[in-house]
Amino acid sequence: MSKQQLAPTAAGGCCAPIATTALDAAQAAEGAAAFKALADPVRLRLLSIIASAGDEVCVCDISPHFDVSGPTISHHLKVLREAGLVDCERRGTWVYYWPVRERMQWISDLLAVPALTA
Amino acid sequence: MSKQQLAPTAAGGCCAPIATTALDAAQAAEGAAAFKALADPVRLRLLSIIASAGDEVCVCDISPHFDVSGPTISHHLKVLREAGLVDCERRGTWVYYWPVRERMQWISDLLAVPALTA
Repeated sequence: MSKQQLAPTAAGGCCAPIATTALDAAQAAEGAAAFKALADPVRLRLLSIIASAGDEVCVCDISPHFDVSGPTISHHLKVLREAGLVDCERRGTWVYYWPVRERMQWISDLLAVPALTA
Repeated sequence: MSKQQLAPTAAGGCCAPIATTALDAAQAAEGAAAFKALADPVRLRLLSIIASAGDEVCVCDISPHFDVSGPTISHHLKVLREAGLVDCERRGTWVYYWPVRERMQWISDLLAVPALTA
């Protein structure tokens, strides 16, 4: 699904908070795809390591946190990147990752309950 | 996994925002399980219909929004309920659903980026 098909209402993605406005089928598909990227413990932990680092993170510093293989880590990082949650750049031997904070905030906003945060 | 194993830091679930603190493996498992419940377009749209209604919703008013079968709707509602995102009560013929707003806000807080919301 192309994101261009949906009118963005916030930086990073479509849609008002679901606590205030029901999603149509296309919006639900876009949202569910983002949640799917977060629905794996290794990926969610990877994103938390990258997002909380305060700076870009070398993949060489990420792998030691996990018991899974390097290719598995690479696969999960690719899923996070395709979901727009992280971005990266290769420099020499290593790839460096940083969070796409606007995209994280978009997902957060989607689930926010204004009555509880006001 | 028992939620009792994790020290709750907010109503609805464990953990500080991942933009500030990396998750350990147990916290990532709890978070990923919640995201998994949202990682399906029908479930996400169901939750949006229930959460945005402003009152409890009869399952009889939910089904007409979808092209899928009644049992499929029931299955997805069960997954949302097991994830703690909705609750329900049977009254006579019908079951009525309402959102668990604290649980939605917990997931929202997990993804929030304080630097973007401050």
